[in-house]
Amino acid sequence: MKPSASSTSAPAPALDFASVFQRLGPHVAALDACLREQIESFETEIRDMADYCIDTSGKRIRPSLVFLSGWRNETVNPALVKVAAVIELVHLATLVHDDIMDEADIRRGRDTAVRSFGPEAAVLLGDALFAHALHLAAQFPTTEVCSAVAESTRRVCAGEIIQTMRRGTTEISRADYFRVIDLKTAELFRVSCRLGARLAEFSDAFVDAAATYGRQLGIAYQIYDDLADFFGEEARIGKTLGTDLVSGKLTLPLLELGDALPEDERAGLVAELTGQAKPDMARRLGQLQEFAIFERVESEIERQMEIGEEALAPFSDQPPVARLLTLGSTLRAQIAVLRP
Amino acid sequence: MKPSASSTSAPAPALDFASVFQRLGPHVAALDACLREQIESFETEIRDMADYCIDTSGKRIRPSLVFLSGWRNETVNPALVKVAAVIELVHLATLVHDDIMDEADIRRGRDTAVRSFGPEAAVLLGDALFAHALHLAAQFPTTEVCSAVAESTRRVCAGEIIQTMRRGTTEISRADYFRVIDLKTAELFRVSCRLGARLAEFSDAFVDAAATYGRQLGIAYQIYDDLADFFGEEARIGKTLGTDLVSGKLTLPLLELGDALPEDERAGLVAELTGQAKPDMARRLGQLQEFAIFERVESEIERQMEIGEEALAPFSDQPPVARLLTLGSTLRAQIAVLRP
Repeated sequence: MKPSASSTSAPAPALDFASVFQRLGPHVAALDACLREQIESFETEIRDMADYCIDTSGKRIRPSLVFLSGWRNETVNPALVKVAAVIELVHLATLVHDDIMDEADIRRGRDTAVRSFGPEAAVLLGDALFAHALHLAAQFPTTEVCSAVAESTRRVCAGEIIQTMRRGTTEISRADYFRVIDLKTAELFRVSCRLGARLAEFSDAFVDAAATYGRQLGIAYQIYDDLADFFGEEARIGKTLGTDLVSGKLTLPLLELGDALPEDERAGLVAELTGQAKPDMARRLGQLQEFAIFERVESEIERQMEIGEEALAPFSDQPPVARLLTLGSTLRAQIAVLRP
Repeated sequence: MKPSASSTSAPAPALDFASVFQRLGPHVAALDACLREQIESFETEIRDMADYCIDTSGKRIRPSLVFLSGWRNETVNPALVKVAAVIELVHLATLVHDDIMDEADIRRGRDTAVRSFGPEAAVLLGDALFAHALHLAAQFPTTEVCSAVAESTRRVCAGEIIQTMRRGTTEISRADYFRVIDLKTAELFRVSCRLGARLAEFSDAFVDAAATYGRQLGIAYQIYDDLADFFGEEARIGKTLGTDLVSGKLTLPLLELGDALPEDERAGLVAELTGQAKPDMARRLGQLQEFAIFERVESEIERQMEIGEEALAPFSDQPPVARLLTLGSTLRAQIAVLRP
């Protein structure tokens, strides 16, 4: 299973927000220190295992969204560091569980938790990481962070469950696809922006706008990730092309292709997605080019990002806005690299 | 894996606190209504699956501890109902994950979630149940419930991880055994009593005493469960005798037997626990009788319960105390049934 934007066992397409925003350096350093501190909270017998899972080598997209949405100035805000750590711990817990389901051996260049400790311990370790994230969330003066993070986590899980249950079926509409990516990927992007802006004490109107921007960026990012599954240069992004077709996962490029194909050709694609026929990858990749699927999907990504940008438009004088908008530019630049 | 007191796929020994305290009827009815209400909070697509997991047919030991520790009078206290639902949801989430690891097909007379929905969906459903429990916990005015429940959950997971990693090894001391049962079983018993007393606004001293009683009862209950694995009447308790020996789990009856056996006999037991020899169950059951292991373990249970009862002694005028003490009598009666 490859349920969320960065849960593949092979490295996901690079979208290193932290490197784009060099000014985030001190914030990310504080985040890493906070994450390392958390290891002390685990029972001594499982501390080394928790340490292994609390990996600080990831892209830290969600923490970057927290820091940028709550940007007032260069000063590192301890409340933002803590909420970024909470959200990153939830994300790390989902990766531990995803790797069990994917039977993934390698993540970020080293053995996964499931390979190192076995599936039983890995299920429980993911649970323990998630429990600790919520314990950390309960250190805020009010229940707001706990409530928001717990609800978002339930929504992420719901999105992954829906995707899992639908695998290998083709009775999926565009609305179904958008519903799943909204839950499984956009939800944590959204709550990262919302809590970042909120804890930095921006106005409620700006908090809502930042949340909308985060959600739309998450949707756009997931569509980009699904696009890269077919158009990425295999060697560059480190994964095999077309894995979604092989695993029966109906993503936007395939939905667009299904719409574009003549009736008789469509039946062949359905047979491949439902496992009744072996995927003819060369043929499908040729058709993706022939019917200009890249451009169709790219314009959908653009449409989604514009909704987020419009939400921020009335707040152009606020310190986070220019920084948040740069994330969109980064994503557009990444997409340009994929263009066939 | 059989990590906690009532996580076996076969019914655990009956210790139906709710039936003992018939007066808890309205409280348990309110709990069941609250649990059913929670189903509405799940995303529509996964609501039926959540409904399936939010099973109200269990023994509800932990909710009963909440209600009894917070007992003022017959009136149902909504705060106690809510915290009982939170703790029961956490417990149900751990059962969903335990059944995956145990590859259990049946629980409480029907298919497990893992059998009904597959292991991928079951891991995610357990996660979603736990996330929702914490979301519900965040509805209290302060972060106290969230914090306590999240920390207890982490400790339960830690206990189960330690037990999993030690399976099939015999380098386990009595201290190691007590550490594991304190985490995996006594922790949720403890937090149930603590939050029950706290939310009913008893004094801090009584809250501590109730927590100690809950913890000691949990330890006693887990030892009883481990004893029943060897001394229970198979048909009555619905599980096969000696499963802990077969699965290499070193519990108190086996620790006591190891201490009692002469040196040359001990090597055989070690070989069986580490999977180097096939367990000779008839021989071991005979030795458990010969060396009076039941009586040794029973006196340890007694010792643990007395610590809890001593903690409550100064508060004998408080309404929860007589009710809590009846739980100990119930457990003693259950043990008497096992006596060979």
